[in-house]
Amino acid sequence: MTSYTAPVKDMQFLLHDMLAVGGSDVPGYADMDAGFTGAVLDEAGKLASDLLAPLNAVGDRMGCVLENGVVRTPDGFKGAFAALKAGGWTALDADPDYGGQGLPYLMATAVGEIFVSANMAFNMYQGLTHGAYSAIHAHGTAEQKAMYLPKMVSCDWTGTMNLTEPHCGTDLGLMRTRAEPQPDGSYKITGTKIFISAGDHDLADNIIHLVLAKAPGGGEGTRGISLFIVPKFLVNADGSLGARNALSVGKLEHKMGINGSATCVMNYDGAVGWLLGDLHKGMKAMFTMMNEARLGVGLQGYAVAEAAYQNALGYAKDRLQGRDVTGVKNPGGAADPLIVHPDIRRNLMDQKSFVEGARAFTFWAAHLIDRSVRQGDAAAEGLVSLLIPVLKGFQTDKGFEMAVQAQQVWGGHGYVEDNGMSQFVRDARIAQIYEGANGVQALDLVGRKLATDGGKHVMAFFDLVKGFIKENEADARMQAFLPPLKNASKDCQAAAMYFMQHAMKNPNAALAGSYDFMTMMGHTCLGLMWAKMAKAAYAGLDAGGDADFLQAKIATGRYYMARQLPATALHLARIESGADPVMALAAEAF
Amino acid sequence: MTSYTAPVKDMQFLLHDMLAVGGSDVPGYADMDAGFTGAVLDEAGKLASDLLAPLNAVGDRMGCVLENGVVRTPDGFKGAFAALKAGGWTALDADPDYGGQGLPYLMATAVGEIFVSANMAFNMYQGLTHGAYSAIHAHGTAEQKAMYLPKMVSCDWTGTMNLTEPHCGTDLGLMRTRAEPQPDGSYKITGTKIFISAGDHDLADNIIHLVLAKAPGGGEGTRGISLFIVPKFLVNADGSLGARNALSVGKLEHKMGINGSATCVMNYDGAVGWLLGDLHKGMKAMFTMMNEARLGVGLQGYAVAEAAYQNALGYAKDRLQGRDVTGVKNPGGAADPLIVHPDIRRNLMDQKSFVEGARAFTFWAAHLIDRSVRQGDAAAEGLVSLLIPVLKGFQTDKGFEMAVQAQQVWGGHGYVEDNGMSQFVRDARIAQIYEGANGVQALDLVGRKLATDGGKHVMAFFDLVKGFIKENEADARMQAFLPPLKNASKDCQAAAMYFMQHAMKNPNAALAGSYDFMTMMGHTCLGLMWAKMAKAAYAGLDAGGDADFLQAKIATGRYYMARQLPATALHLARIESGADPVMALAAEAF
Repeated sequence: MTSYTAPVKDMQFLLHDMLAVGGSDVPGYADMDAGFTGAVLDEAGKLASDLLAPLNAVGDRMGCVLENGVVRTPDGFKGAFAALKAGGWTALDADPDYGGQGLPYLMATAVGEIFVSANMAFNMYQGLTHGAYSAIHAHGTAEQKAMYLPKMVSCDWTGTMNLTEPHCGTDLGLMRTRAEPQPDGSYKITGTKIFISAGDHDLADNIIHLVLAKAPGGGEGTRGISLFIVPKFLVNADGSLGARNALSVGKLEHKMGINGSATCVMNYDGAVGWLLGDLHKGMKAMFTMMNEARLGVGLQGYAVAEAAYQNALGYAKDRLQGRDVTGVKNPGGAADPLIVHPDIRRNLMDQKSFVEGARAFTFWAAHLIDRSVRQGDAAAEGLVSLLIPVLKGFQTDKGFEMAVQAQQVWGGHGYVEDNGMSQFVRDARIAQIYEGANGVQALDLVGRKLATDGGKHVMAFFDLVKGFIKENEADARMQAFLPPLKNASKDCQAAAMYFMQHAMKNPNAALAGSYDFMTMMGHTCLGLMWAKMAKAAYAGLDAGGDADFLQAKIATGRYYMARQLPATALHLARIESGADPVMALAAEAF
Repeated sequence: MTSYTAPVKDMQFLLHDMLAVGGSDVPGYADMDAGFTGAVLDEAGKLASDLLAPLNAVGDRMGCVLENGVVRTPDGFKGAFAALKAGGWTALDADPDYGGQGLPYLMATAVGEIFVSANMAFNMYQGLTHGAYSAIHAHGTAEQKAMYLPKMVSCDWTGTMNLTEPHCGTDLGLMRTRAEPQPDGSYKITGTKIFISAGDHDLADNIIHLVLAKAPGGGEGTRGISLFIVPKFLVNADGSLGARNALSVGKLEHKMGINGSATCVMNYDGAVGWLLGDLHKGMKAMFTMMNEARLGVGLQGYAVAEAAYQNALGYAKDRLQGRDVTGVKNPGGAADPLIVHPDIRRNLMDQKSFVEGARAFTFWAAHLIDRSVRQGDAAAEGLVSLLIPVLKGFQTDKGFEMAVQAQQVWGGHGYVEDNGMSQFVRDARIAQIYEGANGVQALDLVGRKLATDGGKHVMAFFDLVKGFIKENEADARMQAFLPPLKNASKDCQAAAMYFMQHAMKNPNAALAGSYDFMTMMGHTCLGLMWAKMAKAAYAGLDAGGDADFLQAKIATGRYYMARQLPATALHLARIESGADPVMALAAEAF
């Protein structure tokens, strides 16, 4: 059985030492002093360790069950969901006008990591609801907001997002679900949607489905798509629940992982829906919240890896096997603990340096979103929009790899299901796929975001790195950090330059290197984070802070700079080999 | 539902164009003309496609069941096992004195790949038996051989290997299972063994367990260990089955994958056993066949990846999603097939170039084993012993990665269990763990094999690469292959040099880089294979061979050289960063 402890100290270090949130002028940040954030994170950690983490294996083993058209969640989920609601955890960063607490998105992100680490599948019910809440909040009429948001903020009602159909996922222009306008202003929605997380379950009184469908007159492809609110139970004017809508669960998927999360095929058979936002602008409405949705998935990548790492570390300290070649470390025991072995240490350092770096990247991105949303900071928005596909793609790829490495520490005991290490691997895998498969993230990055506003945002990123290096190069202690960061950033710039020089003539020259570019940008972002954390740690040491903690932070960062960041050169080499090796073989010749 | 077709043409290319087996002086190779090997591989392919592959999903879904102390295999396994036996497939390379066909190990390896690709879990029953057969063949008395081998060659009886105990896997010196000598020359075996593949099942009349245990007088650690034959049913002098032995299945493991393979906890409660080989030389006896056992697992790595690749490729050709940015390819359809997209192409080329390279490496290694065993070629034995940990570790790591990439092509449809892509990932995962976890392979390589015979074998490998380059550098067509191979080999030499210069002072300087060294050696071996395949392909073209096939081979090799081989520089950089980043953090500071 696995266990989980929230890394509150690491989070506090990021919030207060690296990001210095207390001194920020972002509205709402002033209240985030260390005492307040520490108390919130401690409470979240308690709930996660005591209630959510023990249900993680239960959810995996029992899964959800579809019976008589209704989905039943695993034992214990109902009680845990009630506790989550009772503690106000579903309302953290929601609008106070609708019952939310109005905390910064950054704070909700930190708490979200804790819940995801403890039980990723369970946390999806509220995660999806938050996404649907955001879409209605951004695009709903006053009536719609009043009708749905308070219940969704409290999670009395949950939400879903319906995009995918059997024959189309990435290419939504092929969509077949139809919306027929009715005389009363509503629409009749007809079609089949698949992979609908939390499509049905027994945790809430009502489920508010947001459904993309084609209404007449919008033209071909994605232009004809509109977004609709389609509740499971129709809502009366007084807020009470009315008739059952004409929608049903066609199938409950049997998946590789996240078994506690109900993934449904949803059939809409002339279901009553109401337009959300503008007609034929459904794609835009659905993707308003894309940065936050993708950040949430990128967070899952490292949050599951954190939980896996904690359990790999525990095993490495407990399991006695072999002797330290440099001298016996546990003379009273039959063998030394696994952690003495350099290759186990390498494995653990890979995990630790990734997870802590990814957490910093994610917190920084959440902070940029706060600056964008709460201050209207266009530069912050441009930068975070550029980096979101990197954060989603890179962190879910590496998060999965790290879960696999954590499982490896356990040897054969990690492969049997009893010990829970396999679940981390199986759960983490989905994050590379949903919310835009990682190849699509790479395409978004290279095919769209790089060139946005004339390439202004990627230049801003490189300038930011350059500025940080310049600002700190006088500090001799930073020498383990700055030169590797400079090299990595240069490699990224060279890759971007390669794309610019070749993509006009042959778009494939850029697209064939898109995945490598996403990955090298991810490394560089984590390199920048580690340099910033090192700076904060040295400042903490100078100020007489917790030396053990801060020295460990620096040592972990040095590992990343020495062992991971040099990967950018490999990715650049691949990119500069061009499209030809990738495309030389005709499709028929495979 | 997945499908599988044996890559007979690729195998024939390796056997006859790259390895030129027909012209070899290895005893038994003369009969391996293209007509014969083609007929054998075609037949194996038929059995695999028609019978074994359809049972792959069945085995995964049903798993094995333990009832009343007996393990029942999934539906269909009994019939398939009977067909395997009836076709003589279990006897291919076994000794004709005991009913085998005496074919080269290379031939059995090629056939083995086909069966593993079709159904890895099913093939383990005969795979384990072959290992036990080999140990008895090498170390048994004439009586033991006569009693057990004919039945094991035919797989009327199957075999197992019992090493691991709950508290010890890698560190077998901690073993607690005891063997008490009896007056009649037998031993009473008492202890618990775990992770015993095929420990019990309903496919054979008897199961011959080979069990490592400590007999009195052998001293501490691994020196005290002996190997014992412990049959499920005792065998009477006339070969008939006698009493049930005092051994039982304590538990059937619920695993992440290979569910069709029964993984058992075995309890030996004073079971009757007979010494196999010399007293207190059990480790040596068990590991006589280590090269073949590890090659078999390294083969699983790419064989499962081959099956996953075939199904990813089929999906990429069928699934319509998006349009080729360089121009519509499927104007009659609503969208173009996935395979037009450069990032999908990158993904598929990664898989294809790995699988074909790994197959060449594996066939070459099997050929070296034939030279070693059938000709007593000490240089071949030294070389293959050096390369086996590379083959096992690298191929199972990359094989797993490639299965993950194949699953990724299917998007969300790869994550649901119905389509079979998840099974490839879950099955492939175990190969990184068993038969020596890959970290142990790296340790074997760097801590032992590198220095064997004064480093003679690794020097021979580098000389072999150098010789090949020199021999072919006049051929301008080889320019896409030779310089990258030279760089990769130089990187490996630099890493070996780094180890030599630093390991005396600090063994951790080598051990902290062991995993990277294993990986870069794996890339270099595949680079060498691709260079050899390219040479053979150009020769084939010159001789008027199948141009489409040979050009595709060359294009696939060029991809590997351009996009994968440069990874050696990253691994070298990590190694040269030394032990300090890896070991800086004290165990307590994690």
